[in-house]
Amino acid sequence: MQCSSYRKAVIIVAGGVGRRMNSDLPKQYLLLGERPVLIRTLEMVHESVPQAHIVLVIAEDMFGYWRELCKEYACEVPHVLAKAGTERFFSVKAGLDSLDFSDEDLVAVHDGVRCFADKRMFDDCFFNAERYGAAICACRSVESVRYDGKSIDRDKLFSVQTPQCFKYGILRAAYNQEYNSSFTDDASCVESLGTMITIVEGNRKNIKLTTPLDFLMAKGLLDAGEN
Amino acid sequence: MQCSSYRKAVIIVAGGVGRRMNSDLPKQYLLLGERPVLIRTLEMVHESVPQAHIVLVIAEDMFGYWRELCKEYACEVPHVLAKAGTERFFSVKAGLDSLDFSDEDLVAVHDGVRCFADKRMFDDCFFNAERYGAAICACRSVESVRYDGKSIDRDKLFSVQTPQCFKYGILRAAYNQEYNSSFTDDASCVESLGTMITIVEGNRKNIKLTTPLDFLMAKGLLDAGEN
Repeated sequence: MQCSSYRKAVIIVAGGVGRRMNSDLPKQYLLLGERPVLIRTLEMVHESVPQAHIVLVIAEDMFGYWRELCKEYACEVPHVLAKAGTERFFSVKAGLDSLDFSDEDLVAVHDGVRCFADKRMFDDCFFNAERYGAAICACRSVESVRYDGKSIDRDKLFSVQTPQCFKYGILRAAYNQEYNSSFTDDASCVESLGTMITIVEGNRKNIKLTTPLDFLMAKGLLDAGEN
Repeated sequence: MQCSSYRKAVIIVAGGVGRRMNSDLPKQYLLLGERPVLIRTLEMVHESVPQAHIVLVIAEDMFGYWRELCKEYACEVPHVLAKAGTERFFSVKAGLDSLDFSDEDLVAVHDGVRCFADKRMFDDCFFNAERYGAAICACRSVESVRYDGKSIDRDKLFSVQTPQCFKYGILRAAYNQEYNSSFTDDASCVESLGTMITIVEGNRKNIKLTTPLDFLMAKGLLDAGEN
């Protein structure tokens, strides 16, 4: 990894309302072990990319709750808040709007509920985004897969994770498009303008905490000293 | 679920040598919590389908070790052993060879390292195999996916698990074919003869214990009372 002269930002997207969890509180605010998931994610991002400007995108009506949470858990990671939209697309866009960046500067987008990403992933992803414009973390499938009713070659299949890193100009152009429900992540949005996506090795421990089951498995990782 | 008049067998495939684990002992013999994975799987299968004949396919040189293990852990589930082959295909075939079944009888194939399957999965899978010939447990992807470098619709993508259940005649015909490396599971093997595969809802807790990371996550499930 070489030193880059470009600025870096990480947009942490956590606007979701957690409909899939058995809880009223959105899942990013739930405790995993002793600390809320989103506090863990914020701290992990700061440790992984200490020089990055961090934008945290959450629902506007959670701003007060979030500030209290940071106090309660003595989380002093510098960051700014941006208002989440009705879809992930609009949340990322709000994060981008808050940045005063040049086209060659680098932006990572990261899911607020992925607190197990790490420095290696961010470094690889930023490094490749600087060279090629767009790089995302993804993992090969370990199970057989079927698509549209047919067996397909699992070696060609990647489960996409975050971080997903981009040159600011590329990501900005992608998010200036009209919203389209086929944009399931930043890569699909960027790709629709013709930019090639570079895949960087993710890590299977980088799970997306979506269901109660994910929390149980994540607890297993924590108890074994992963974080 | 209705009562079926057909015989049932479960072939548990555990011939692998565990090259992906940091251990000399194949992974199916490793401890998860207090008990070896394969003992857990055998007991789970017996509890899920008490009437089924169980064939356990393991490497021939592990037969003695396995019998000792059953004694040590006081595992009294009735089962027969069959000799694993060099590929999963040949192991399943060896399991089939040990059955004296009729074409309409039902056979499930199950991975030895999936100890978190349960009665609901086996019941659904056998029920659908009896009606349609071939049924497998699978889960929708919760992450965005890319295939051959392109975004694809994750709603059409299923990660295939086991159990996979079949009418004996269908599975027998499939395994009478020449071995082909594109046969990554029983479904792909059966499908190559033109049989439609019915997908039954799997369960994301039904993880395949392949890497040390899987064991950590599985420990989280165990500690929370899942089994």
